[in-house]
Amino acid sequence: MESSRREIEVMANLLGSNDVQAEVNRAHFRKNNCLAINVIGSPGAGKTTLLEKTLPHFTLDLRVGVIEGDIFTSKDADRIAVHKIPVIQINTGGGCHLDSKMVSKVLPEFDWSSMDLMIIENVGNLVCPADFDLGEAFKVIVLSIVEGDDKPSKYPVIFRNAKAVVLNKMDFELLTDVNMETMRHDIRTINPGIEIFEVSCRNGNGLQAWTSWLRHEVEAYKEDKG
Amino acid sequence: MESSRREIEVMANLLGSNDVQAEVNRAHFRKNNCLAINVIGSPGAGKTTLLEKTLPHFTLDLRVGVIEGDIFTSKDADRIAVHKIPVIQINTGGGCHLDSKMVSKVLPEFDWSSMDLMIIENVGNLVCPADFDLGEAFKVIVLSIVEGDDKPSKYPVIFRNAKAVVLNKMDFELLTDVNMETMRHDIRTINPGIEIFEVSCRNGNGLQAWTSWLRHEVEAYKEDKG
Repeated sequence: MESSRREIEVMANLLGSNDVQAEVNRAHFRKNNCLAINVIGSPGAGKTTLLEKTLPHFTLDLRVGVIEGDIFTSKDADRIAVHKIPVIQINTGGGCHLDSKMVSKVLPEFDWSSMDLMIIENVGNLVCPADFDLGEAFKVIVLSIVEGDDKPSKYPVIFRNAKAVVLNKMDFELLTDVNMETMRHDIRTINPGIEIFEVSCRNGNGLQAWTSWLRHEVEAYKEDKG
Repeated sequence: MESSRREIEVMANLLGSNDVQAEVNRAHFRKNNCLAINVIGSPGAGKTTLLEKTLPHFTLDLRVGVIEGDIFTSKDADRIAVHKIPVIQINTGGGCHLDSKMVSKVLPEFDWSSMDLMIIENVGNLVCPADFDLGEAFKVIVLSIVEGDDKPSKYPVIFRNAKAVVLNKMDFELLTDVNMETMRHDIRTINPGIEIFEVSCRNGNGLQAWTSWLRHEVEAYKEDKG
């Protein structure tokens, strides 16, 4: 379709320029020996709640920073700031995803002298953020199982591009029609190597496996530098 | 930010061309005396399920068609086709929203001789579809209350531009921390005139109010032609 062709050209240009800046960001994280992750999910999947539950597992002995992407409000950044870690809000002003330039602009606001983990929470959207490399080491998807077991096959791009998926709101499993077999099967069909964590941020089930894995990733990233 | 300025210019051009075609589509619906609605919501909000529950209230005495927008699959169209009404799938091939040109391309595939209601289900995304007029009479939001009561204030554009919002999965109300007072208050603050329907597609509660209202809208649209 004509409009699509035009949009694709426009997107290709935008993505090209985005990728250049993403590599600059990636070099910055590498130089500072800080694992950066890009957390992506629909509105209400539980991204911010997952961060709130994850931070206490790290902040005793590691330095963590958060970049919060939102369209207009600073509600999520306010929730993270309570944990007394550095958090910067990016408001896209209507934009449906973060891009690498938005991220690069806020990097100087952090103290990088001993940062171990930078968590970038993207705008609530399972589609557009998949296409924009921010310079992260890897992407993590947060998916509420209440959204339904057909979501991986309907939104395959993001599942193909992520290193891990956190299936959240598992406390609703028996209250919904979600088929977790289908969910896991479809995710692994799209991306056989992806890590799958089944979590309830509400009752805490499954959080330990997720935080242990993430801690391992932080350590592995530092060793890679070696 | 520079990238944002560039994107805004690009978007303005795309939207301008989109709006021209949207008016052509709108004239087509008007000429054929058919109410067209644009249904928008996050992945898993329950858009297709709401259609499945809504169609039986209309198909006995009215002619209804459905346009299903999805990124890749035809899963939703397959679910609608069971209801033996004309349904056309648009796959955006990665695109995060329908636009008016995609819709215009499929319009000739319907028989318009006595169509009363055309339901366009947009791609699962609470952000981008808000900006693209398809030529519909009005937009309807489907929001799963499990997504949380902060969603209206975090995604205000779509709430400002819609005529009605269906708050779905109300059967989960007491199982979540959602504050329905906050939800309703924030929606009405953004858009005082919006219709709010509280619905459970699972147990059927609230569906009657929604379908009665929609039927009234179909009739009012036809009378407007008069």
